[in-house]
Amino acid sequence: MKKLINHREHFVSDMLAGLKINDPDIDIIADTVVVRKQRKESGVALISGGGSGHEPAHAGYVAGGMLDAAVCGEVFTSPTPDKVLEAIKHVDNGDGVLMIIKNYSGDVMNFEMAKEMAEAEGHKVDAVIVRDDIAIEDAEMRRGVAGTVLVHKYAGYLSDEGRSLAQVKEKTESMMTTLHSIGMAVHPCMVPTTGDYGFSLEEEEMEIGIGIHGEKGIYREKMETVDKIADRLLEELYKYNDSSELIVMINGMGGTPLSELYVVTKYVMASLENKGRKVTKLLVGDYMTALDMQGFSITILDHDEQIVAALEAPVESTYF
Amino acid sequence: MKKLINHREHFVSDMLAGLKINDPDIDIIADTVVVRKQRKESGVALISGGGSGHEPAHAGYVAGGMLDAAVCGEVFTSPTPDKVLEAIKHVDNGDGVLMIIKNYSGDVMNFEMAKEMAEAEGHKVDAVIVRDDIAIEDAEMRRGVAGTVLVHKYAGYLSDEGRSLAQVKEKTESMMTTLHSIGMAVHPCMVPTTGDYGFSLEEEEMEIGIGIHGEKGIYREKMETVDKIADRLLEELYKYNDSSELIVMINGMGGTPLSELYVVTKYVMASLENKGRKVTKLLVGDYMTALDMQGFSITILDHDEQIVAALEAPVESTYF
Repeated sequence: MKKLINHREHFVSDMLAGLKINDPDIDIIADTVVVRKQRKESGVALISGGGSGHEPAHAGYVAGGMLDAAVCGEVFTSPTPDKVLEAIKHVDNGDGVLMIIKNYSGDVMNFEMAKEMAEAEGHKVDAVIVRDDIAIEDAEMRRGVAGTVLVHKYAGYLSDEGRSLAQVKEKTESMMTTLHSIGMAVHPCMVPTTGDYGFSLEEEEMEIGIGIHGEKGIYREKMETVDKIADRLLEELYKYNDSSELIVMINGMGGTPLSELYVVTKYVMASLENKGRKVTKLLVGDYMTALDMQGFSITILDHDEQIVAALEAPVESTYF
Repeated sequence: MKKLINHREHFVSDMLAGLKINDPDIDIIADTVVVRKQRKESGVALISGGGSGHEPAHAGYVAGGMLDAAVCGEVFTSPTPDKVLEAIKHVDNGDGVLMIIKNYSGDVMNFEMAKEMAEAEGHKVDAVIVRDDIAIEDAEMRRGVAGTVLVHKYAGYLSDEGRSLAQVKEKTESMMTTLHSIGMAVHPCMVPTTGDYGFSLEEEEMEIGIGIHGEKGIYREKMETVDKIADRLLEELYKYNDSSELIVMINGMGGTPLSELYVVTKYVMASLENKGRKVTKLLVGDYMTALDMQGFSITILDHDEQIVAALEAPVESTYF
């Protein structure tokens, strides 16, 4: 296995140590919980997290304007409830805590368990569950993917506006009704703690409908040029959205070079324009990755002036 | 070849089109010259460029506080003199133009030729040549690599301070006397215009002393853990530097996941500390890449208060 690591067993702690060296505004508590060094004195505290391997998500978004804590599990592995509980206890300033959970059974179970434990200790905690990945047909089973980062930013903005826990929850849930993503990959990621690839692909194949945990896609198809891939993914997204004005995020999967992500951007935007869809806000970059997977995802969301304002509001994270 | 492209022949123009869609503050002139939309009204204008494939370098650094223009060649191919001339003519506001050239024979020849043509038209043009890559022993033959981005930023700061062309040149040349880099790779890049890999590596091998054009390294060695790789690269750098206070850049090669870059960061910093070297300014990220190559480089530079101030000064680029 050729990975830039010291030892597979302390990959996550080494990674977090490096993150902290590079970001003087964060602290790490309970080994794997990333928090702001300056705790927010008022406003709903926001917690997210899940398995590691999606960097900069979620630890890179612990910053003024976004998250208050990220609970980091091992690679592609849910953090345990006690760690989530530590996060809740640390960030709660009395205005309540909102957990933003990606819809994976382990994450949902462990975050919910921590919520119960925290409530027993007198904390006010609520949760929203992100299910933006339309690769899964059953709406309840949909995974949380890149759209989660937009939820972090929107919720951070609402919290900074002084909204109550109930309001932040209600508004992010309303936003999520039009939040849809789909991804594709040309190369799988290699998991640095096992040395295994999540799947293997022939030279002329691509995966459509990938997740962010190295798992293969829903469809395996013949490799196409990027204009056709853009059309293909957008057609899937249009099944869930007929809005003429959209917020769009084009997300690199971690190993995709920036040059290719910009080629993708050109053709995604051209495809949207061909269909008469106007983009009111565009985000391009590596927001929610799957280690060194090569590929990209598209996230779309109905235009909303308040959401655009939220996405454009100042943020102290380097990664948004 | 599985690359996210439309057609290999318009890879660079597609990439630049995507870049422009995502950055409303730039324009593209003469097909492949990226310039600021708002031309700087006074101060030395700064031009860099070279072959494409190093994104975000150099086009991503065309922004307030850094470059005025980036002349983009085909992938790993020097731009032609006429394009450099277009850039000079566009950016020159009367205060002169400084070209920041990475030391590759094609780049040096073509930029110098453009300089002569521009001078014949009355422009005041000068050049600095970056040779930070110590993988090449002969100092005159050394390639310009990641350290070039620090030169962009420093020169941008000096220009914004109102320094003259001669002063910006003299100060950046002085800075470059202590600017040294070395890189390594665990996976080669694939060139999207040819489908070829720059080199091939066995499962347990790594390349030390790579360039940024997909070429192989100076040494091929057995893969090691990252702590040993950090020691190995720093030992090479110490041959050229015995300063106790350093500015350090840890640069990802394009396909390296952020998680591994942070693991690298931890061990590079630990190795520096073990040797009693204090880091006064640290930069971590993908600054100068080689497409989707997996690996990293370390750049070190003597501490200097003015240079640190320059590196920390506001900049309008997303990538610095």
